Amino acid sequence: MKTIKKYQEIIEQALLNKSYGSTPKELYDPIEYIMSLGGKRMRPVLVFIGCDFFCGNIEKALHPALAVELFHNFTLMHDDIMDNAPLRRNQTTVHEKWGNNVAILSGDAMFVKAYQELCKTDSDKLPKLLDVFNDFAIKVCEGQQFDMNFEKLQKVSIAQYLKMIELKTSVLLGGSLKMGALLANANESDAQKLYDFGKHVGVAFQLQDDILDVYADTEKFGKQVGGDIIANKKTFLLLKALEMVEGNRFMKEELHMWLNAPHFDPAEKVTAITSIYNFLNVREIARNEMKRHYDIALTFLNGISVAEIKKNELIAFADSLMVREV
Amino acid sequence: MKTIKKYQEIIEQALLNKSYGSTPKELYDPIEYIMSLGGKRMRPVLVFIGCDFFCGNIEKALHPALAVELFHNFTLMHDDIMDNAPLRRNQTTVHEKWGNNVAILSGDAMFVKAYQELCKTDSDKLPKLLDVFNDFAIKVCEGQQFDMNFEKLQKVSIAQYLKMIELKTSVLLGGSLKMGALLANANESDAQKLYDFGKHVGVAFQLQDDILDVYADTEKFGKQVGGDIIANKKTFLLLKALEMVEGNRFMKEELHMWLNAPHFDPAEKVTAITSIYNFLNVREIARNEMKRHYDIALTFLNGISVAEIKKNELIAFADSLMVREV
Repeated sequence: MKTIKKYQEIIEQALLNKSYGSTPKELYDPIEYIMSLGGKRMRPVLVFIGCDFFCGNIEKALHPALAVELFHNFTLMHDDIMDNAPLRRNQTTVHEKWGNNVAILSGDAMFVKAYQELCKTDSDKLPKLLDVFNDFAIKVCEGQQFDMNFEKLQKVSIAQYLKMIELKTSVLLGGSLKMGALLANANESDAQKLYDFGKHVGVAFQLQDDILDVYADTEKFGKQVGGDIIANKKTFLLLKALEMVEGNRFMKEELHMWLNAPHFDPAEKVTAITSIYNFLNVREIARNEMKRHYDIALTFLNGISVAEIKKNELIAFADSLMVREV
Repeated sequence: MKTIKKYQEIIEQALLNKSYGSTPKELYDPIEYIMSLGGKRMRPVLVFIGCDFFCGNIEKALHPALAVELFHNFTLMHDDIMDNAPLRRNQTTVHEKWGNNVAILSGDAMFVKAYQELCKTDSDKLPKLLDVFNDFAIKVCEGQQFDMNFEKLQKVSIAQYLKMIELKTSVLLGGSLKMGALLANANESDAQKLYDFGKHVGVAFQLQDDILDVYADTEKFGKQVGGDIIANKKTFLLLKALEMVEGNRFMKEELHMWLNAPHFDPAEKVTAITSIYNFLNVREIARNEMKRHYDIALTFLNGISVAEIKKNELIAFADSLMVREV
């Protein structure tokens, strides 16, 4: 994992040295601000990993890596407006600090900056990288729209939910790996397998997050347990529970009572819905779905024509992200 | 002008045949909608003109032309949210019809679609075209932010105003021509001169619009005369007038009284401010500034190494856009 830390440092250093523009400052200050809020820089790290996986020169991967991080933060800036979120990484969101109009326009400018960064890639690689970038960019938009639609829908199927998280979060992870792979001259088939590996690991991550929201050790998790339950968030656990209580009138009434209660004690609601989850064993079902995606990911990885040692390194990295208390 | 009509028809036909995506429909319906609202398709026409100016194959210009039109409509979709505009081309705006969140996200998706369209350009031309596209895209964002800032500012100089309209509207016209030129293998210097021609013609257009708002024949103009005056819009005429009344206490008080009046009869306000403009002769000053930019544009055009007949065609086209009642 030493390499990962090194990659993160390269990204942080490059971001520190980067200037996006000066005037009008309402356009550029929010970009500086959101990019300085930190985070694990997981997506640019994946560009490096994808490049190194096929023994590429990771120096060549810096611009695409920064492009991916800029794109990701652009989506956060716009998502926070749409979700009316007051905080991002424990700091005031851009639209709260500067207003919606600034957050819309500054986000747009940031999106252009992402393309400008990507366009610094060697021109023989650029068209292929742009295809991957455009493809995940449009999918992330689709995923966000599905997510917003789901909030208003009475019924969302597990299949719809899995498709949404794939689009909203996982394709960007797969795409980051694939961009790195293409930079290292991987063939299309291997690059696509690495993409599919990342995509399925991404779905597994999201399912893990859904489980952790309910079952995590609060201290390790770093945020309030039960937040999703309090907000009626349509997670895998809730959707599965809703599906399963269909055959049990008493439990169905109990679950819907909590979901529709205009006033409630948060702790009581978390305890009550967690009891339903426990009774229905949805934690185990979610864990199985998570493992299923993780196994699919490994199958794709195993199909790639590179040395086992590279694969083992990547598995170790993925495992390090998966082994939190589930 | 027969050619222009032909170019417009090619664009309209291509747009009619185009499909952007299907689900989620909240993402794609607004794109279909705004692209179907029509307009003169001036920017894609300019891509064709720039390409033909250097005897390029205009079939190769279709994708970049569509990209520019998609980009332009993306900016309209987001600008309409920021400006709280109820109507666009006499139809309900996207955010009024579907809500702000849909307009933000659908606009983002449209921006990706613009890049996807651009990326269909032959790969040997793509990096240069992307540079031009990214450059005007960021400038258009800067221009829109300056425009929003100016609404809240007490004092805006003529220089600031000219810079704003250059960024917000003119660089896109120049950039469209330049993209066409580069497709036709124009050298960098000639392509840049065509860009500067388009940029200065664009500034002249905008100044013409400022004049027409006050002095147009209503029927020919197609919109209410005095709309800018009623809305206190900081046009060249108003900014110039504000500058000139500084030395005339009576007229300064009169102008500011109208600008600050919470209630007023619109027709009376238009008449009163027009009288001030007439007294100060700002129409003539604006017309001179317009002509100055038009002459600069011609100087750039004349510096380009192509046959005179091509230049005359382009001048005839620009003139046809400029000769409205000013």
